[in-house]
Amino acid sequence: MPWTSANRIYAKPSNTSGGETRNAVQASPSPTAAADSGGRFVLSDHGYGKGAVKLLHVHRDGDFHSIREFEVFTDLKLTSESAYVSGDNKEIVATDSQKNTIYLLAKKYGIKTPEEFGAAVVSHFLYMYKQVAEARCKVLEYPWERLQAGTPHNHAFLFAPTATRWCEVSQKRHEAVSVKSGLSGLRVLKTTQSAFMDFVQDEYTTLADAAERIFSTIVEAEWTYESARNADFDNAWLTVKDAILDKFAGPPDTGVYSPSVQHTLYQAEKVVLEKVPEIQWIKMTMPNKHYLNIDLSKFPANVTKGDPRHHIYQPIDKPAGLIYAQLRRRVRSQL
Amino acid sequence: MPWTSANRIYAKPSNTSGGETRNAVQASPSPTAAADSGGRFVLSDHGYGKGAVKLLHVHRDGDFHSIREFEVFTDLKLTSESAYVSGDNKEIVATDSQKNTIYLLAKKYGIKTPEEFGAAVVSHFLYMYKQVAEARCKVLEYPWERLQAGTPHNHAFLFAPTATRWCEVSQKRHEAVSVKSGLSGLRVLKTTQSAFMDFVQDEYTTLADAAERIFSTIVEAEWTYESARNADFDNAWLTVKDAILDKFAGPPDTGVYSPSVQHTLYQAEKVVLEKVPEIQWIKMTMPNKHYLNIDLSKFPANVTKGDPRHHIYQPIDKPAGLIYAQLRRRVRSQL
Amino acid sequence: MPWTSANRIYAKPSNTSGGETRNAVQASPSPTAAADSGGRFVLSDHGYGKGAVKLLHVHRDGDFHSIREFEVFTDLKLTSESAYVSGDNKEIVATDSQKNTIYLLAKKYGIKTPEEFGAAVVSHFLYMYKQVAEARCKVLEYPWERLQAGTPHNHAFLFAPTATRWCEVSQKRHEAVSVKSGLSGLRVLKTTQSAFMDFVQDEYTTLADAAERIFSTIVEAEWTYESARNADFDNAWLTVKDAILDKFAGPPDTGVYSPSVQHTLYQAEKVVLEKVPEIQWIKMTMPNKHYLNIDLSKFPANVTKGDPRHHIYQPIDKPAGLIYAQLRRRVRSQL
Amino acid sequence: MPWTSANRIYAKPSNTSGGETRNAVQASPSPTAAADSGGRFVLSDHGYGKGAVKLLHVHRDGDFHSIREFEVFTDLKLTSESAYVSGDNKEIVATDSQKNTIYLLAKKYGIKTPEEFGAAVVSHFLYMYKQVAEARCKVLEYPWERLQAGTPHNHAFLFAPTATRWCEVSQKRHEAVSVKSGLSGLRVLKTTQSAFMDFVQDEYTTLADAAERIFSTIVEAEWTYESARNADFDNAWLTVKDAILDKFAGPPDTGVYSPSVQHTLYQAEKVVLEKVPEIQWIKMTMPNKHYLNIDLSKFPANVTKGDPRHHIYQPIDKPAGLIYAQLRRRVRSQL
Repeated sequence: MPWTSANRIYAKPSNTSGGETRNAVQASPSPTAAADSGGRFVLSDHGYGKGAVKLLHVHRDGDFHSIREFEVFTDLKLTSESAYVSGDNKEIVATDSQKNTIYLLAKKYGIKTPEEFGAAVVSHFLYMYKQVAEARCKVLEYPWERLQAGTPHNHAFLFAPTATRWCEVSQKRHEAVSVKSGLSGLRVLKTTQSAFMDFVQDEYTTLADAAERIFSTIVEAEWTYESARNADFDNAWLTVKDAILDKFAGPPDTGVYSPSVQHTLYQAEKVVLEKVPEIQWIKMTMPNKHYLNIDLSKFPANVTKGDPRHHIYQPIDKPAGLIYAQLRRRVRSQL
Repeated sequence: MPWTSANRIYAKPSNTSGGETRNAVQASPSPTAAADSGGRFVLSDHGYGKGAVKLLHVHRDGDFHSIREFEVFTDLKLTSESAYVSGDNKEIVATDSQKNTIYLLAKKYGIKTPEEFGAAVVSHFLYMYKQVAEARCKVLEYPWERLQAGTPHNHAFLFAPTATRWCEVSQKRHEAVSVKSGLSGLRVLKTTQSAFMDFVQDEYTTLADAAERIFSTIVEAEWTYESARNADFDNAWLTVKDAILDKFAGPPDTGVYSPSVQHTLYQAEKVVLEKVPEIQWIKMTMPNKHYLNIDLSKFPANVTKGDPRHHIYQPIDKPAGLIYAQLRRRVRSQL
Repeated sequence: MPWTSANRIYAKPSNTSGGETRNAVQASPSPTAAADSGGRFVLSDHGYGKGAVKLLHVHRDGDFHSIREFEVFTDLKLTSESAYVSGDNKEIVATDSQKNTIYLLAKKYGIKTPEEFGAAVVSHFLYMYKQVAEARCKVLEYPWERLQAGTPHNHAFLFAPTATRWCEVSQKRHEAVSVKSGLSGLRVLKTTQSAFMDFVQDEYTTLADAAERIFSTIVEAEWTYESARNADFDNAWLTVKDAILDKFAGPPDTGVYSPSVQHTLYQAEKVVLEKVPEIQWIKMTMPNKHYLNIDLSKFPANVTKGDPRHHIYQPIDKPAGLIYAQLRRRVRSQL
Repeated sequence: MPWTSANRIYAKPSNTSGGETRNAVQASPSPTAAADSGGRFVLSDHGYGKGAVKLLHVHRDGDFHSIREFEVFTDLKLTSESAYVSGDNKEIVATDSQKNTIYLLAKKYGIKTPEEFGAAVVSHFLYMYKQVAEARCKVLEYPWERLQAGTPHNHAFLFAPTATRWCEVSQKRHEAVSVKSGLSGLRVLKTTQSAFMDFVQDEYTTLADAAERIFSTIVEAEWTYESARNADFDNAWLTVKDAILDKFAGPPDTGVYSPSVQHTLYQAEKVVLEKVPEIQWIKMTMPNKHYLNIDLSKFPANVTKGDPRHHIYQPIDKPAGLIYAQLRRRVRSQL
């Protein structure tokens, strides 16, 4: 495994030494927004980093190569407000240096999962720079797959964007690392076993009950871990993806009945919490991508007749329904 | 003014009657995720609405027409979890009905500002449907301008997207409406009066001090109001826009020196809080869109010489610096 | 097979009757741009149609459903210029009616391939409307795949955009239908077996010879058919896709050496013409998506050392190389 | 004016010397696709270049700075097919060198208009490299405007994308340079003085005659010049833009009646040919961006009544009408 220093990654970087002292700054009263504004205003949040650092990691194990392509975003929150308030940059870790650091950490440690790489990045910034109160790192993975032609190819890859994996890792000084993982852009459609009936009917309603309708959505999901130390990030991501496909589609022959997007979404979330104990909560968003029936009654029969097995729908880009829910595991003390 | 019922919009919709009872549902124990999962899981957030409802409002005052084009998003949070847990839709206000409602409210009341329209929408949903615990509405405005040809045109308009206006309005039952406004996509560039020096230099640094650099950014800003009732939303938006341009560019002849994006951003925020007393906090994001110097030393003199007034830079799309801060007005009790 | 009237599709619509006469217009001198401008100007091209008509076709064969989702563009060129020159619409087939027609033809005949559907559309317009001199139809197919979970699912589908299929079909009155097919967005990468050496070195050159480099591209391909009547459109599309993957990647164990994007592109085109005799010419575009080596020599050894199997590259979005070629089958008389 | 060598730009680069001989290659039989395929196939088109080279040019005239930001695409067609057929790169001008060249030419000569810069680029490639049979260059200009705050700002600029300017310049060896200019993305809307009536009504028609409708479009225009040598490119672009706005909107008080998109488009083209004698032909595309009436008859009066001056429309992204025409000046011999 190319990952060489997992221990340090999840350590709380509180007892730092060495690296930090090199960059320590003099303890002098630093200008604040409160002081600068005569007590009227306060800088309630601030930070800076580098966005969209693109990175290809190639692991060459003899003739067998593996790749991961990432887009990485960093964000450092400093203890001092002086860069903002007085234009003093002496505690600023340039975003250009943050970009260099991303490349150098990838070179040094390699890349196992987006989550572990993100953890290495935030840990590094806290360890290196005493003035950093919190470090954050977002990683977006490009969906490359190894090319298959009978057997797997040693070094050729295909871009297969059926779903994108991402994560956001953050860590405050003296606290444990916190990891959120995500899946986005998983687009599915089924042609039956979907209904929407018995909803509120009033003077604002024109939609009729539908016992049968097309159900199509582009799923977004995100979830956090109880503890990042023992999580199996790859397994969690695949389990979430499978749970969505399974609860959306059902068995290959009969499918599964969906009385609403809301219910299907909840079913998928419940499976995830049951199957992956280290997941704390999961939130899914399932836009209802509408496919409207086309009213053929406006046309004469001679232009509409044909094979009765043919059905035509009009896909609608905007607007779309927006349905979401967050399902959370109860903590032990709540039980 | 086309806005006819401002009073009801900002009323707390607690003493509702009439409209609500029509849609009231029987008080029976509603299924919950907690019950459904044997106490293991809880639905910590849930909601649904219609996204990207496009809308053109034309106000025809004789020959003089005015337009506003919006993209509207709604979101209703119900008190009941039954749609998710048991697939029972009886309390669901269909997203299609929400779309109808947006059109009908625009027709009935007209549109004054995005914020006031959003407030009318959330107020309406709380008033009409007892099962709604919280209603939210996001409005994106399309940047149309009246065409000018010497004099303003009576009915022709030009799309001028130098900056986009948006807002998010939300209201919980028995609480006041809450309004966040935003400006996005304001892209600016200056060719001098920008430096970045005296930042941390260590083994991860390759960037040299720059006493003179191109400064270009695409500004995002968002802010909230102490009270939505008395706010002048149009004036606030224009003041924010002007503050950004003013602190970025400075006087037409000399400009203003920027020691960092951070400092310029803070200066703009401070002006906003000073000029618009009803703004509670403002957050700006200023990505540093890099324009790199091109190293001509690699080329022989005969292909590089020319008019010394010509300077060439390489614009970089990715990566970009990401700088942000939130400046907040201290509440009276904190002073 | 859901396609019921293939014969009429490829007929030259010259001996039309019935349908046409209903819409025939009186033969009177129609205003032209030449007349309108006193002989100074001529309308050298003109047309109108409906763009981006979205369409889902579901074929329900008992429990087994099949889908195709299209975005269809139509374009009619009329014999008369009067709509442009004098604002007389009497020969105009409204673009709204063109949209209706797309839906009604899909309902009536079903959809077999994008090419055959496009041919049905243009044939219909020429048959129905005497004033149409040429009809064109572009079809973009959405890359849905049947969901697989051990066995194929009866009615659930996954959006898998590894490559998009499209076609452009056109027909002039009294001429045969002409078909161009295309494949776009096929993105691939290989980590070895690619070089670029021995190119022109002069005072504008800074690129060094590379005996080993990352090769990544997003392939676009388009091709025409000698005769649309006998073409197997599905087989042609799959053969083009396979030829590209095969000539790019080579055998799974050793790969295949690429001395340049140009050479690899030509190799793929040659295979296509050899394998698909009905293809007249094929044009491929292979942007060279650059992945740059990162210069680690600027950093001290302690921050760069690590497992030597780790290699890091910087992906570049802009600029990209743009390489293309069109390979054409010689007609018999040229041999 | 920063442009220093206009003379050489429009010279036919046939009598070249010096520069060319340095890169001349030995006249030996070069491999061709025809030879390689035993006479079966022929390389009917081929070329390569650099796409999307981003470039900011700053002209610093004391305190007064001017900028132009471009995205430049180059394309070289070589006389030889050897790079494609045999993988021999010795005549290849690397796309990386083409990128360098764009920067160095901008530095050396400065930038006056996109068209003149494109002409300098193609002229350079033909002059420098004997193996180039044709050179092409596309330039996309970013719509920056000088910031105005009472007076024009010396060095601050605002991105104002109401319309984008572009051009395509090409030149074959021993021929004159050819220039096409373009305007894209000019989006306009008017609320009256637009109708669409008396079009074909048949069994595919559901659209009713509209004596009054919203007219909105996003104009694309492109045109060529009789001779690039004497053309005033800035004036032509502004004249085209004004003609479109003028014929679309009409006088500020009354507007101008449009019986169809087709007619309005033709009117704008006619004005352009009348006002700019050096334009050879102009082609405009005006998609009809639909704004649909919303049918309020489905709702009870109490939810629809309101100020009768309020009108609500539903903007539709897809589909859109697509209307275009090309108007060409007759050459003298045709008159």
